[in-house]
Amino acid sequence: MPEDSAGQAEAAGLRSRVVRAGTPGTWDGIRSEPYRRADGRPADARRALLAGGPASGCAFELRYFELAPGGRTCRERHRHQHAVVVLAGEGEVMLGDAVHLLHAGDLVRVAPGELHQFRNPTANPFGFLCVVDAARDRPVAIGEDDAASCSVDPAPGSR
Amino acid sequence: MPEDSAGQAEAAGLRSRVVRAGTPGTWDGIRSEPYRRADGRPADARRALLAGGPASGCAFELRYFELAPGGRTCRERHRHQHAVVVLAGEGEVMLGDAVHLLHAGDLVRVAPGELHQFRNPTANPFGFLCVVDAARDRPVAIGEDDAASCSVDPAPGSR
Repeated sequence: MPEDSAGQAEAAGLRSRVVRAGTPGTWDGIRSEPYRRADGRPADARRALLAGGPASGCAFELRYFELAPGGRTCRERHRHQHAVVVLAGEGEVMLGDAVHLLHAGDLVRVAPGELHQFRNPTANPFGFLCVVDAARDRPVAIGEDDAASCSVDPAPGSR
Repeated sequence: MPEDSAGQAEAAGLRSRVVRAGTPGTWDGIRSEPYRRADGRPADARRALLAGGPASGCAFELRYFELAPGGRTCRERHRHQHAVVVLAGEGEVMLGDAVHLLHAGDLVRVAPGELHQFRNPTANPFGFLCVVDAARDRPVAIGEDDAASCSVDPAPGSR
C-alpha cells in the first residue's frame, strides 16, 4: 500500500514539504489572512492555515493565529474542540467564567460548547497554534459589541 | 445545541483546561512516555499526548516528541499525514531521499506514503509538535538496523 499511497498523493498534489519559519509567526509562502469586521476594517487578528484544509485529505487543520496588541478573537462557542499551544508573546483566554493568563508553551484545550475568547492585552503580538477537526460546526458569536463582526468568515472554511 | 454539548462534554469528562508549560517540552500533569527498543532499552525519544486521543471525540491527536542527542524516530512510512512544528532545538528530517535541517518554528508536512525519519544530530534536545488523524493506519518500519524496534508501540494507540 505505501507505494500506491505515494502515487495517489503525488496525483493529488500532496507532497511532503519543509516550510521555513521566517520572522516569528510567518512561514515561507504561507499567506496569512486578516480577520475583518463587518464594516471591512481589520480585526487586529490574522490567521494562517499551516496544514490540513479541504483538499488535504487530513481530518484536522493546523492554523496559526496572531493577535496584535489589543486584538481578540470572537467570543464564541461551538461543538468542535480546540487544542491551542502558545508560540509567541503573552495573552489571555476566557474559558466560561474564568480568564487565564497565557505564556509561551502553554496548552489550552477548549471543550465542546465552552464559551471562549483569546485576547491580547499586551504591547506585543500574541501568537498561537490552534488544531481543529476539518469537519466542524460553525461558531456562534455570543454577546459583546462586536459580535456581529465575528460572523464574518475571512475565507471559506475559516472558522 | 451549545448548552446540550456543554452538558455532554461534562458528562464525558471533557473539560476545558489550561495546561501550563514547565521546562521546555514539559506540561503540568502530562506524562511523557519513552519509546522503547525491542530489547527494552529506551530509544532516546519520548512522546506526550497533548490533546485528542481515543476518548476525546476529536478527529485529531496533538503530540509532542522529543529526541535526545543522537535520538531518532523510526524510519517509516504510512498513509496518514504528519503536520510537524519544531518547538525546541534543532534537528533534521529525512523525507524520501532528501535530508533537511530543521530549526525552531519550521513546519514539516509529511505526505501519505512518504518514507521519513526525524533525527537529532545535535548536543541538545530536539522537540516538535506532531498532529495526526486520530483514525490512522499503522506505520511500516523500513530498513535500518533498529527497524525491529520501531514496531514496538510504547502505549496502545501510540504511533
